[in-house]
This record gives sequence, structure tokens and C-alpha cells, in this order.
Amino acid sequence: MKKLLVFGHQNPDTDAITSAIAYAYYLNQNGIEAEAVALGLPSEETAYALNQFKTDAPRVIATAANETDTVALVDHNEAQQSVSDIKDVEVYAVVDHHRIANFETANPLYYRAEPVGCTNTILYKMFKEKNIAIPADIAGLMLSAIISDTLLFKSPTCTPEDEEAAATLTEISGVSLNEYGLAMLKAGTNLDDKSIAE
Amino acid sequence: MKKLLVFGHQNPDTDAITSAIAYAYYLNQNGIEAEAVALGLPSEETAYALNQFKTDAPRVIATAANETDTVALVDHNEAQQSVSDIKDVEVYAVVDHHRIANFETANPLYYRAEPVGCTNTILYKMFKEKNIAIPADIAGLMLSAIISDTLLFKSPTCTPEDEEAAATLTEISGVSLNEYGLAMLKAGTNLDDKSIAE
Ligand SMILES: [Mn+2]
Ligand SMILES: [Mn+2]
Ligand SMILES: [Mn+2]
Ligand SMILES: [Mn+2]
Repeated sequence: MKKLLVFGHQNPDTDAITSAIAYAYYLNQNGIEAEAVALGLPSEETAYALNQFKTDAPRVIATAANETDTVALVDHNEAQQSVSDIKDVEVYAVVDHHRIANFETANPLYYRAEPVGCTNTILYKMFKEKNIAIPADIAGLMLSAIISDTLLFKSPTCTPEDEEAAATLTEISGVSLNEYGLAMLKAGTNLDDKSIAE
Repeated sequence: MKKLLVFGHQNPDTDAITSAIAYAYYLNQNGIEAEAVALGLPSEETAYALNQFKTDAPRVIATAANETDTVALVDHNEAQQSVSDIKDVEVYAVVDHHRIANFETANPLYYRAEPVGCTNTILYKMFKEKNIAIPADIAGLMLSAIISDTLLFKSPTCTPEDEEAAATLTEISGVSLNEYGLAMLKAGTNLDDKSIAE
């Protein structure tokens, strides 16, 4: 297979952008060539997180089949939220925390979904299961997504596993959880056009 | 939620029957009340394995909604292979090694799929990730499914992970792998009506 493209949903939120970055890193550590891309530009909240953790925004793609034959989906699975030509590529893997709908494959694949508050909480467990160390900057981006999806643990979708993951990712990233979390969420409130609600 | 019913596909093969038994045990160990049931009677091959490892065949159900509101699917996901009233119950979890098609949920769920030769290979990894000990008889049933789905590791769908799982499950169950495997496969060849091919 060619280089795997990893991306979250259209109108990307912080989880969609950072789970692509974290999962591409995870795949690379497992010997699979993968690149995180995005189906849109980062929101102001996401830009704040990327800047804090010194990471470039993923390159934006409109179609996938012109450059690869295989993709991985994060933070979504429904075709209408995915890349426009999803039907023309093979889905190697999905990591997601949403319901499953409008999703079909021709072949067996990796699919990892759990009913938790954030895709990055599942990715955190996957790193842990394989004993792969998470670099500080990626830990900070994963933490940012958990803060964003759970509104600093106040959302009804937040689970004890999200809080556990956030606690460890806070340690690795070296930020002050509440101070950083509030500043990041505040950066996002400047946004006019809202990203899709989770 | 009421007691979870766990079942494999219609016309059950050894993987469908034994992965329900193994996953129900796993859920019970995680504090979730679950019962393994089946959508049909065991084949002669499966009956051989159940007898060898002193386990009763799961009770056969025709519908689920008359006794529960929540189910877990193993070794399948497509609605037409599942219980007749699958639309009337909530799917709590899926553990499977097939392509995904005709599967849709209203809510987030656990979904664990991997492109390996047998559902029980994925279950073996899940037990290991959570450090849950596998009892000898359940290990023997899980091994039987790997032997069955991979035709003693000769099928093109067999992966190194299936072989690794089988090696450990052989140790736990205390059987002689090749001798037992050939005897079990031979017991199945007496069968007139074939179960669905994998
Ligand atoms: Mn999202
Ligand atoms: Mn999300
Ligand atoms: Mn089967
Ligand atoms: Mn199977």
C-alpha cells in the first residue's frame, strides 16, 4: 500500500485535527508510513493548541485517491462527513467515538470505537497497550482535544477514562491543566462559524 | 441495562459459538452481566470442541427483544446474519474480523475489529490487555475456533497474531495442538450442511 493518509471529519474540530496527528505518529511507530492531513483549516481553538505545542497544522486535502489508495479515519466514520472521494479508497482503520452509520467496507479492517468523550482518549489507551511513549507535544495536543470535546470534563459525554487519560497527558505535556484548558477554550470562543457539535 | 445477550452469526460455526462464550466471560469479569447464546445449534465440529472442554452448548434464541434491550455481536456485524429483531435492540459492542456492511447504530458503542483470521484472536488480545486470566476450558474453546477458522493455520486469512494466540491458548488448555486440531476438524467433516464460509 502507498503512504496512508489519516484524517478527521470535515469542518475539523480540535479532536479531528489532533487525533489525526496522534494516530499517524502511532502508525509510524508501528512501522506503517502514514501522514496526518485535514479536511479543512484549524479553528482558532485548534490553532491555539497547535501553537502552544509547536506543531504545524496538517496540510488540507480535498480528495484522497489522487495521492493514495489507503486511508485511516479518525473522529468520524460516516461517508458524508469524510473526504469527498472516500468510495475510491480503501479504509485501513477507523478510530472513533461516534455512532456507526453510512459506513461500509469491501474488506476486513481495524475498527476501534469506544463510547468515551474523545477519540484521543481511545488513542491514549492504544499507545498504552502497545507501550509506545507519547512525546510531550503530541501529549499536549491529545490533552487539548479531550479538554475541547468534554468542555473541561463538564460535558455529559465525559467518562472516567477521559479524565484518567487527561491526567496522564497533563503530566507528560507539562502544562497546568485548568489554566491552559480555559485559555484554549477561550481562544475558540472568538470563532464566528461553529464547527460541528459533538 | 438488562442482562446483555452475546451471540455470533446465524448458522453458527465454531468461532461464532465460542467467541460468544469467551466474550460473555470477559464481560462478566468486567462486572457486566452477560450470557452467551446462539442463533443455531452447534455443528459437529463445534460439538466436538464443546465436549472436549466440558462446556454446554449455548441456549438457542430466535429473537432478542423479548428478553433484553441490549446485545453484543461477535464474529459478524451485518444485520442479515444477525438475530431477526436486531433493529429492536441496542448494540452495546461488536467484536469481529469481517468487513463492515449493513451495520448502523443510533448511539456510540464499543466496536473492535481487526483483519485477523479469527474473532477469538482479537478476544485473546483483549484478555491480555486487561490482564484477565483465561480459564483452561475457555482457552481450549478459543483455540478450537482459531484452528477452525484458519484450518490449522493453512488458510490465507491466517496471520502471525492468530498463531501467537493459538500457541498461548494451547499452553493454557493443555491439549496437543496438532493431534487435537486434526481430530476436531475431522469431526466436522461428517457434516452434511456446511456453515457459512469465512
Ligand atoms: Mn470531532
Ligand atoms: Mn471527537
Ligand atoms: Mn464465523
Ligand atoms: Mn470467524
